[in-house]
Amino acid sequence: MRFELLTTDGAARAGLLTTAHGTIETPIFMPVGTQATVKGLTPEMVRGVGAQIILGNTYHLTLRPGDELIRDLGGLHAFMNWPHPILTDSGGFQVFSLAQKRKITDHGAIFKSHLDGRELELTPEKAVEIQQNLGSDIGMVLDECPPADAPSDVMRNAIRRSIHWAERCKAHHSHPTQAQFAIVQGGLNIDLRAECAEALIPMDFPGYALGGFSVGEAPEAMHAALPACAALLPSNKPRYLMGVGRPQDLLIAVAAGIDMFDCVMPTRSGRNALAFTDTGPVKIRNAKHKRDPAPVMSDCDCQCCRNYSRAYLHHLFNAEEMLGPTLLSLHNLAYYLRLMREARSAIVEGRYGEYQLRCEAGWASVE
Amino acid sequence: MRFELLTTDGAARAGLLTTAHGTIETPIFMPVGTQATVKGLTPEMVRGVGAQIILGNTYHLTLRPGDELIRDLGGLHAFMNWPHPILTDSGGFQVFSLAQKRKITDHGAIFKSHLDGRELELTPEKAVEIQQNLGSDIGMVLDECPPADAPSDVMRNAIRRSIHWAERCKAHHSHPTQAQFAIVQGGLNIDLRAECAEALIPMDFPGYALGGFSVGEAPEAMHAALPACAALLPSNKPRYLMGVGRPQDLLIAVAAGIDMFDCVMPTRSGRNALAFTDTGPVKIRNAKHKRDPAPVMSDCDCQCCRNYSRAYLHHLFNAEEMLGPTLLSLHNLAYYLRLMREARSAIVEGRYGEYQLRCEAGWASVE
Repeated sequence: MRFELLTTDGAARAGLLTTAHGTIETPIFMPVGTQATVKGLTPEMVRGVGAQIILGNTYHLTLRPGDELIRDLGGLHAFMNWPHPILTDSGGFQVFSLAQKRKITDHGAIFKSHLDGRELELTPEKAVEIQQNLGSDIGMVLDECPPADAPSDVMRNAIRRSIHWAERCKAHHSHPTQAQFAIVQGGLNIDLRAECAEALIPMDFPGYALGGFSVGEAPEAMHAALPACAALLPSNKPRYLMGVGRPQDLLIAVAAGIDMFDCVMPTRSGRNALAFTDTGPVKIRNAKHKRDPAPVMSDCDCQCCRNYSRAYLHHLFNAEEMLGPTLLSLHNLAYYLRLMREARSAIVEGRYGEYQLRCEAGWASVE
Repeated sequence: MRFELLTTDGAARAGLLTTAHGTIETPIFMPVGTQATVKGLTPEMVRGVGAQIILGNTYHLTLRPGDELIRDLGGLHAFMNWPHPILTDSGGFQVFSLAQKRKITDHGAIFKSHLDGRELELTPEKAVEIQQNLGSDIGMVLDECPPADAPSDVMRNAIRRSIHWAERCKAHHSHPTQAQFAIVQGGLNIDLRAECAEALIPMDFPGYALGGFSVGEAPEAMHAALPACAALLPSNKPRYLMGVGRPQDLLIAVAAGIDMFDCVMPTRSGRNALAFTDTGPVKIRNAKHKRDPAPVMSDCDCQCCRNYSRAYLHHLFNAEEMLGPTLLSLHNLAYYLRLMREARSAIVEGRYGEYQLRCEAGWASVE
């Protein structure tokens, strides 16, 4: 993997990230394909809206259909027909958020599957092996991700453990083309974040992530912490903000110097009839759209906006037709990916601040 | 509308049906787009598997979102982004099969909506008006469709009423480019079918359908009745067998001289993880497909079979991912439409009987 930082505008960065399955223009948003599919969309649709890299979830895939099965069928790229870059998480976040009866020791996490109650163990070594079986282009180290309001002793212990686990992940990693990213924890406490980053940076991972944001804290608290947290990470390596967020969160994070994002928001919102637009979110189920011949967004060139009215989408959701979630997921991903493309152009042209202000003014206007 | 009978092979026919929105090569299968969408597929996907005409359901569309709303938004073609031919049914079949507390008189049918219990009336005139609002290329007359085991006095009365309603539909029809097809009822009784056909043929409709098949009778009984029933219909006009059926039913009906079909089977089966293949239906949920790297059907060139393994599809259905129903609906429609294309080529080349036998032998082989 190679990362080239092309230009900066303030702290905002435009780069090129080259992986075994292709080159990614950063800043970039990664659609989430939890169970080896971006929900409701074909890979052609995901590619068609400008996706350059997607995320797969280690926790879900190891439970079902199993990472060894995916390996035996040629890896995740072949299995799901996505020949472009893939990043996998470590499964740690889901062990903390989804699994039942988890027990965490320095050795690893023992938990029961949320699907069938099976008892399973996730150690740093196991997280690496699963991701190597999946064959992703970028794997993540196993970390412990406490909630935002965790007491400071819990947070300290999580950082200690995450650093230890990162070492073990690096030592166990042997995939020839997969790059492994480390994760900096520490919540909203900059000192803890710095302590964690200072321990991880000498290990020389090819990329660094910020974990433990969007885990219950106020968005404003995250916004305030991001510039200092991003600045802790090496400037010559890609910086990934995990699990964030709304369009405004992305632009603030880009301004802070973040390069990569993932979030279920565009697809999950799409399935729930919420569309992102330049003038704020639109609830397509709202009765005012029943006879509206306008597209979701008039200057969007996605397949949904070029071909369908709000009235049609309103009807699809009303009638519980699958095509409704499909078309709005498509639009929302197109929206997120265009936002990142436009942000990148603005950075290259030295007008990022202006671009961000204009977007924020539009979102604040409300239809 | 213009119908050109190009060639025959025994009773089997190859033709060209030209409508306001394009020309259809017959015999043809029409995917069902009940609620202004072929479930789970974009119009591009439906077109991509070779669909030339789709069916819309008058009963569903008049209840939701309403035929006047669709008219005001440019008609059904524009509303659902399908610029190719559309046939609409009359809504009669659903009044008999779906609606609650229906009361039928010679004037029309009064029924309660299955969605909200609203009381509604469907008369021949109303059925015509709704379909004219939808703007379909082919509309159907309102008919009464008794179950297969209806006593002969019920069947006789249904025929009397259907003939009377056909007259009223024709008198009320005023759409400049929509063709109106009549429907012959009579169940498995050829004398009743003949009586109905003899009354409808002098009315000179541009096309004739056989209704009242696949309504509970044994498939063999339908197969036995079809040659005589098809022969009752004018040979210079398109012949449409409504709501039928399995691949083997289609080939038997083509052999009897039918030109057009519709059925929910390929899409409904696809949503339920059943795939049609040359060696019979395949249940993708079956555990034997869990690790199977083969496509659903090895010599199928559809998007599903070119790109995905049975193992992947098995996983999608197991994980309840929308993409499973989408991909299998796509394959099944591709299968049905290829069957019709191949049947047509066989007719043109005078080897239809051989083609039919070969298909039947494959389906009988079972994987």
